[in-house]
Amino acid sequence: MGSEDKIIRWICRLTAITAFFLIGFIIGWFARPSSVNHERTSKSFLRDFMDEMHAENIKHHLRKFTKLPHLAGTQQNLNLAEQIRNEWMEFGLDSVELVPYDVLLSYPNKTNPNYISIVDQLGNEIFKTSLAEPVPEGYEDVADIVPPYSAFSAKGQPEDELVYVNYGRTEDFFKLERELGINCTGKILIARYGKIFRGNKVKNAVLAGAKGIILFSDPADYWAEDVEPYPKGWNLPGGGAQRGNVLNLNGAGDPLTPGYPAKEYTYRSSLEDAVGLPKIPVHPIGFHDAVHLLQNMGGPAPPDSWKGALNVSYRIGPGFTDGFRQNKVRMNIHTNNQVTRIYNVIGWIRGAVEPDRYIILGGHRDAWVFGGIDPVSGAAVVHENVRAAGKLMKKGWRPRRTLIFASWDAEEFGLQGSTEWAEDNARVLQERAVAYINADSAIEGMYTLRVDCTPSLHTLVYDITKKVLSPEEGEEGMSLYESWHKRDNWPEKDKPWISKLGSGSDFEAYFIRLGITSGRARYTKNRKTERYSSYPVYHSVYETYEIVERFYDPRFRRLEAVARVRGGLIFSLADSAVLPLDCVEYATSLSTYANSIHQLAKKHPEAMQQYVVSFDSLFSAAENFTVAARDFHQRLDQLDSSNALAVRMVNDQLMYLERAFIDPLGLPGRPFYRHIIFAPSSHNKYAGESFPGIYDALFDIENAAEPENAWNEVKRQISIAAFTVNAAAETLKPVVSETKTSIHN
Amino acid sequence: MGSEDKIIRWICRLTAITAFFLIGFIIGWFARPSSVNHERTSKSFLRDFMDEMHAENIKHHLRKFTKLPHLAGTQQNLNLAEQIRNEWMEFGLDSVELVPYDVLLSYPNKTNPNYISIVDQLGNEIFKTSLAEPVPEGYEDVADIVPPYSAFSAKGQPEDELVYVNYGRTEDFFKLERELGINCTGKILIARYGKIFRGNKVKNAVLAGAKGIILFSDPADYWAEDVEPYPKGWNLPGGGAQRGNVLNLNGAGDPLTPGYPAKEYTYRSSLEDAVGLPKIPVHPIGFHDAVHLLQNMGGPAPPDSWKGALNVSYRIGPGFTDGFRQNKVRMNIHTNNQVTRIYNVIGWIRGAVEPDRYIILGGHRDAWVFGGIDPVSGAAVVHENVRAAGKLMKKGWRPRRTLIFASWDAEEFGLQGSTEWAEDNARVLQERAVAYINADSAIEGMYTLRVDCTPSLHTLVYDITKKVLSPEEGEEGMSLYESWHKRDNWPEKDKPWISKLGSGSDFEAYFIRLGITSGRARYTKNRKTERYSSYPVYHSVYETYEIVERFYDPRFRRLEAVARVRGGLIFSLADSAVLPLDCVEYATSLSTYANSIHQLAKKHPEAMQQYVVSFDSLFSAAENFTVAARDFHQRLDQLDSSNALAVRMVNDQLMYLERAFIDPLGLPGRPFYRHIIFAPSSHNKYAGESFPGIYDALFDIENAAEPENAWNEVKRQISIAAFTVNAAAETLKPVVSETKTSIHN
Repeated sequence: MGSEDKIIRWICRLTAITAFFLIGFIIGWFARPSSVNHERTSKSFLRDFMDEMHAENIKHHLRKFTKLPHLAGTQQNLNLAEQIRNEWMEFGLDSVELVPYDVLLSYPNKTNPNYISIVDQLGNEIFKTSLAEPVPEGYEDVADIVPPYSAFSAKGQPEDELVYVNYGRTEDFFKLERELGINCTGKILIARYGKIFRGNKVKNAVLAGAKGIILFSDPADYWAEDVEPYPKGWNLPGGGAQRGNVLNLNGAGDPLTPGYPAKEYTYRSSLEDAVGLPKIPVHPIGFHDAVHLLQNMGGPAPPDSWKGALNVSYRIGPGFTDGFRQNKVRMNIHTNNQVTRIYNVIGWIRGAVEPDRYIILGGHRDAWVFGGIDPVSGAAVVHENVRAAGKLMKKGWRPRRTLIFASWDAEEFGLQGSTEWAEDNARVLQERAVAYINADSAIEGMYTLRVDCTPSLHTLVYDITKKVLSPEEGEEGMSLYESWHKRDNWPEKDKPWISKLGSGSDFEAYFIRLGITSGRARYTKNRKTERYSSYPVYHSVYETYEIVERFYDPRFRRLEAVARVRGGLIFSLADSAVLPLDCVEYATSLSTYANSIHQLAKKHPEAMQQYVVSFDSLFSAAENFTVAARDFHQRLDQLDSSNALAVRMVNDQLMYLERAFIDPLGLPGRPFYRHIIFAPSSHNKYAGESFPGIYDALFDIENAAEPENAWNEVKRQISIAAFTVNAAAETLKPVVSETKTSIHN
Repeated sequence: MGSEDKIIRWICRLTAITAFFLIGFIIGWFARPSSVNHERTSKSFLRDFMDEMHAENIKHHLRKFTKLPHLAGTQQNLNLAEQIRNEWMEFGLDSVELVPYDVLLSYPNKTNPNYISIVDQLGNEIFKTSLAEPVPEGYEDVADIVPPYSAFSAKGQPEDELVYVNYGRTEDFFKLERELGINCTGKILIARYGKIFRGNKVKNAVLAGAKGIILFSDPADYWAEDVEPYPKGWNLPGGGAQRGNVLNLNGAGDPLTPGYPAKEYTYRSSLEDAVGLPKIPVHPIGFHDAVHLLQNMGGPAPPDSWKGALNVSYRIGPGFTDGFRQNKVRMNIHTNNQVTRIYNVIGWIRGAVEPDRYIILGGHRDAWVFGGIDPVSGAAVVHENVRAAGKLMKKGWRPRRTLIFASWDAEEFGLQGSTEWAEDNARVLQERAVAYINADSAIEGMYTLRVDCTPSLHTLVYDITKKVLSPEEGEEGMSLYESWHKRDNWPEKDKPWISKLGSGSDFEAYFIRLGITSGRARYTKNRKTERYSSYPVYHSVYETYEIVERFYDPRFRRLEAVARVRGGLIFSLADSAVLPLDCVEYATSLSTYANSIHQLAKKHPEAMQQYVVSFDSLFSAAENFTVAARDFHQRLDQLDSSNALAVRMVNDQLMYLERAFIDPLGLPGRPFYRHIIFAPSSHNKYAGESFPGIYDALFDIENAAEPENAWNEVKRQISIAAFTVNAAAETLKPVVSETKTSIHN
């Protein structure tokens, strides 16, 4: 062996050694776990998660949860809470707890029923409204069906002439008082249900000085065309009536403990100081009963648009006509308020990577009676979401972030379970909650999807619905997105229509008080052609399992689709390394809202000039936000996703964006409505208003007693909105100021 | 070569290859940077940082910044802002910006000076107070020395009898009205400075129905024993008077834009609706002038404790005695409120690892005149802190978190610069601010250190002061901690005394409104033996460079020690991987405060029994907090510090702990004081009150007009405090609920 050979051999050895060292080094380098290696598998788990949810299971859950009434505060609803807790544990959640609060609820007096009567001049009750709804077939033996009542009505037996106030909206009262010259002071009012939240009708009645108000369901508002009343179809029978609370809580939760959770040790205000309780008796009736009251009223004939579908030639009152002229109407209301224990069920899946980031799926469990639609169509879907998540965990999946599932109590009594829990956990939610997805009724119609959400969720909602199949017969293979788009287009975007969030369900405290990214999804009617309110049997005894199974969703494919949408949303929010929130969509929406509130103000060009009212600061803020959002997403594209802290930082910016719209001072007179961009309308809690502070300041401003003060308030609200939008834009900018040495404003 | 040999050789080769592979793997594994490898060097940099700060530099900064007056809103103070910005850039900060706001300030009318006169029955002014202080030697040619005035005084020339109200405290007015039977309605009051914030004296005067109030400095309160008046010593000359604002802002910042930053586009309320402006004229005088007003008053003699050190036999009034009986006192006040531009200087050092976590060192720049003590002794220290940080950066250091340095404007006009910036940046500060260290005057006495801070900073303060040397002669080699401990022991702890934070300086918005961990440190007098208020020349023209250089700190070692304490605090907060905050100390303090408020309530045993007032819920909450804090720190000991996200999560819990004490609803009537544990006393803004909601509800409760309502308010406040402490405890618990299936309350 020559020395050259030897050298060559040594070179070979050295090369080999170096090579293996390098291979070792490289493997060692990459073998070391980095904390963001979680992404690869989560997409396939999304597919698994969606596929795991089945129509048959949802049907089964719905059947199981609708056999008995589950009124908040009753033993049956506690039993159901325990059942849900046990099943969620069996499904595989890490932990499940019942969380009680002691809140003010309201029930009819069992021995002294509520009713309305017509009283003749001798004091005889010549007509009485029915004490209960005819019970649907198959449920005759069920005990504890609460009769129709207006929860939190004042007690009392007022007796007087009747005045018909149409829907009882602000504009209806304006018309009555300003055009028709009818004074409601001291009268008993009768309003038809529909258009706005019933609590707003009652508030308007109180403001008008009424001493009682009767609410009735008119077929014009509660009958779909060419549909039979239940049980032959899904319309409201004439004996059916709408239960519901008549509070004006403005987000306070328990009326006795505004701002704080209703725990055992919590101080409770007196009933006189309670938030939102009406000072007058209120009672709901069906149209069979309403006819008797309406057909004999006095006064002028109502405007044509005020005439419902009842075939009576009623007038507006006051004063009964003809033989009834001396008759009066009497309300007999004995409903009691009482502090009652309620129970939320809260289930947890601990996040694998960021356990201190929470995605919440919450919906209520309490129902007025059986709750076939409201809420159990939703609760059954949550149950299936939980079951599917548990199944995935058994396959080894665990979400990046923590998932919280909530079955709220006492939603029907003013969103109390969800609000008290939000109050109880406000501090941790403020710091840790990424998103709240609401899960009330999953179906209210048979036409297409309905989504209400904050703008930053638009893109995710579209992405998820593209991954779900249409549940409609004849649309096999079509995505839910396509089906939805076809049925309800958003012309400005050429995408499916998405609404703003209003209120009337449990997302309220999370979105409007705490500023947590929120959304909701359900199946709905055709909003353009089906003009009835909500759905005909809403809050009646006829909301049964059968109405869903026979009419709304016989194959349970619509509920399955909703389950996949809600499930897909929480899955993506919990599992994506970078939060799937779209700030540019928020920017677009802000500009739209700014334009639209400006249009409203421009109806008063002289006043705007006289009081020097300008929207420039708001437009400039929206522009700042647009630039900040665009730049933010550009930086996001260049994010080093292997840097766990860098990912966390941008996620914090995304998570806290919605929080930035919260003004701790709240809206004028509504301390718990603190979102400057969105609030429930002051005239209809169900509707969402954008830039609500400015909107309310402008409302009816042409009739303001002191126009200068009124326009100053408009200017103040514009300034607050502009500042808030600017401040939100700041949260999206780089986290360290990059200004060098110039003056900055 | 035998086959055995071959096998052996192959085994050798394989072994070698494996060994080199393994070596490579191991090196590769450890070569990969992990994000928390930052700790090793930061301790030595702390030493470097402290050693970099020098007495001589601070002396130089102080001299440079005290040559001219720097009243807020003036050109000189803008010039100083620009100078500071430029020097901070030169020192090496990443960026520095001037941030302007347009706020309501208040100045005397230059052509119509303010004064007080005695008017005889013919209407002649037989005595007038001086229009200015005698200017100290060396400053005779300085222009723009603002004469003594009460900023935001109402204009007016009220004329009436004089009533002496001692310090003008709530208890003084109680004594006057309830024991001495003197009615202040329609009178002009005269109160001595001291004991409480001057704004509270004015508020009390307004509540008492007075039509003006004169404030004077009595030697009893502004003379140290055996000290000569300036310039021979550091006592207040008889011609000196205390400037100062007389607002009652309760944390609102700019009086015209409460809750929002005073930007160009911001809506401003009218002066009538402004927050905190006194409705009556107010004016400050020295004791040379005060003697003339006091010595001829009528009415009964004051209680002995009300007699100051002026050698006059004054009475309480109303009514001048003897020849002066028909004389009256007249105030001539022409001070103007005007919206004026102010400038904060904000400097940034970007954090290397967590740039979205902020540590703020802020102190004001504006001074009533030269500001030798207030604020420049503090501003000079900040300047040295910034210089030292820049020096370290040139050595390659960069803090883990972002450092923000602030030179606030218009502190003297109601903490306006700091409050407006807090309002402007509330959203990002809420999410990102770790701590705020205040840097007002660094010296107010010659005895020892004074620290006021939130309990979670106690331990860090002790640690840092152990690393700083005592500045006192004769204590060479002794630590500041030892020196401080020796001079001001906290008996319950056998550690140096630390106070609660009150208000009256720029931490207010950060701590009490936003709930950011805060503290302050300065050199002080002996609080047990030196009974004069603040320091004698406070807010007079005699606060010069020379008073520090000749009397307070001739070697500038005391200021150097303060610089090292403040610097050490921000360094440790910015650079420690795990935040150096101590939740167990907070727990201990909460228990102490709960006991002490309970003791106060127990002075009314009958009422507590009658109205069923219990503190059990508060004690139980403090106990919950104690357990949660202890468990939290135990888990912290087992933290995997190589897991960047795990470290971030516990840091978030630590950072947000102070935030958890914030109640968005604020304290009753004080919406910007939102900290449930600490607030400025309602009777003296300078003092910190613990459980202020309960304290205020109990205040003077024995004289409540409606005792039941008053005690209900006590119960409500106990409930709020208990809930808040419980909620804060929740933030320290594991981030995911660990309950299994039991009911949880």
